[in-house]
Amino acid sequence: MNATNTNTITKLPEPTLHRLPWYLAYVKLVQAQGIEYISSTQIAKAINVDASQIAKDLSFINISGKTRVGYEVNSLVYVLEQFLGFTSQHRAIVYGVGRLGAALMHDSGLVQYGLEIVAGFDIRPLPHDNINGIPIFNVNDFAQKRAELDAHIGILTVPVDKAQEATDNMVQNGIRAIWNFTPYRLRVPQNIVIQNTSIYAHLAVMFNRMGAIE
Amino acid sequence: MNATNTNTITKLPEPTLHRLPWYLAYVKLVQAQGIEYISSTQIAKAINVDASQIAKDLSFINISGKTRVGYEVNSLVYVLEQFLGFTSQHRAIVYGVGRLGAALMHDSGLVQYGLEIVAGFDIRPLPHDNINGIPIFNVNDFAQKRAELDAHIGILTVPVDKAQEATDNMVQNGIRAIWNFTPYRLRVPQNIVIQNTSIYAHLAVMFNRMGAIE
Repeated sequence: MNATNTNTITKLPEPTLHRLPWYLAYVKLVQAQGIEYISSTQIAKAINVDASQIAKDLSFINISGKTRVGYEVNSLVYVLEQFLGFTSQHRAIVYGVGRLGAALMHDSGLVQYGLEIVAGFDIRPLPHDNINGIPIFNVNDFAQKRAELDAHIGILTVPVDKAQEATDNMVQNGIRAIWNFTPYRLRVPQNIVIQNTSIYAHLAVMFNRMGAIE
Repeated sequence: MNATNTNTITKLPEPTLHRLPWYLAYVKLVQAQGIEYISSTQIAKAINVDASQIAKDLSFINISGKTRVGYEVNSLVYVLEQFLGFTSQHRAIVYGVGRLGAALMHDSGLVQYGLEIVAGFDIRPLPHDNINGIPIFNVNDFAQKRAELDAHIGILTVPVDKAQEATDNMVQNGIRAIWNFTPYRLRVPQNIVIQNTSIYAHLAVMFNRMGAIE
């Protein structure tokens, strides 16, 4: 188990953090069906994760089940959403408004998960000054605009050869966490959070698993 | 190390498969600079992965470095791309043409990584019969159209409460691998490959790491 950091937020094991949103997704379905209580065994059966694993994962968050009936569904949804940070909005900017960056700016679904994109930045002059109502600025204005917008998350969607340079600019100008969609391993100071989401790496895993590689 | 399966494709450890695209991304940068040879130590320094780990990962693929000079850059790019399945096109369909499904159909970058989206399917009548030139059909015609298109990968981008039902339909009608963008844990027969890419789970990890959860 991990230590508790200064502001009493438990730094959870990453596998637990990956599983909690699965539980949330399923418990919300159950909630929509009007069911009031659910046990870890029932969740386990539905989503194919070991029941003892579920109980252990849920022990990290501030909820306890009742003997026999299990967890109160509404409370479980509420506590999971709070805990995962999905109920408060985190202001983010997109760095690199290419295909993927633009797609993320269009994805209003992210707001439901606590991510509010407040601006896009690009090195090129773009045909539009906004996407989906979200303004696009030139990276030259990054320092000033980032501060004005009070955004601390940078979504990195530049070409791989610009990844480190873009990261350095963000880190030097107040970004505290980078959601990295490039397949490049970024170098950052220790106090900066990096979340790597390289969807192409997932493709490689899938192709290999399919035995589909010529 | 894992066993070799029937068609001589090695089933690599997943962490290795996640790292190989990082190496590829970096080696392509080096290639663009006209550099001819690169050592695992040089890669290690640039992308912040242990050199012995890199050498071990590369030992899974059909390439060997030369003492002193390292790997021939052009060969390394070629072999990695081949090995990862990025040079041959795998035909895929998108199941659920909502925001995310539509964004993936717009992302022509996927073709570079070996994924060719040949159709979209949706349960609703949509205003357009294609996106980016890719036809959209009703899920009622799934069995017939899937067979005609000879696609074996299904990209799952439906709402979470339709995830299992959509999966069952795909599996019953010739889909062999599912790229699951929903946070729902799918139940599938053992011979079906599942690749989970829940970007919202990554968000939860990032928020937790930031200590930003209220």
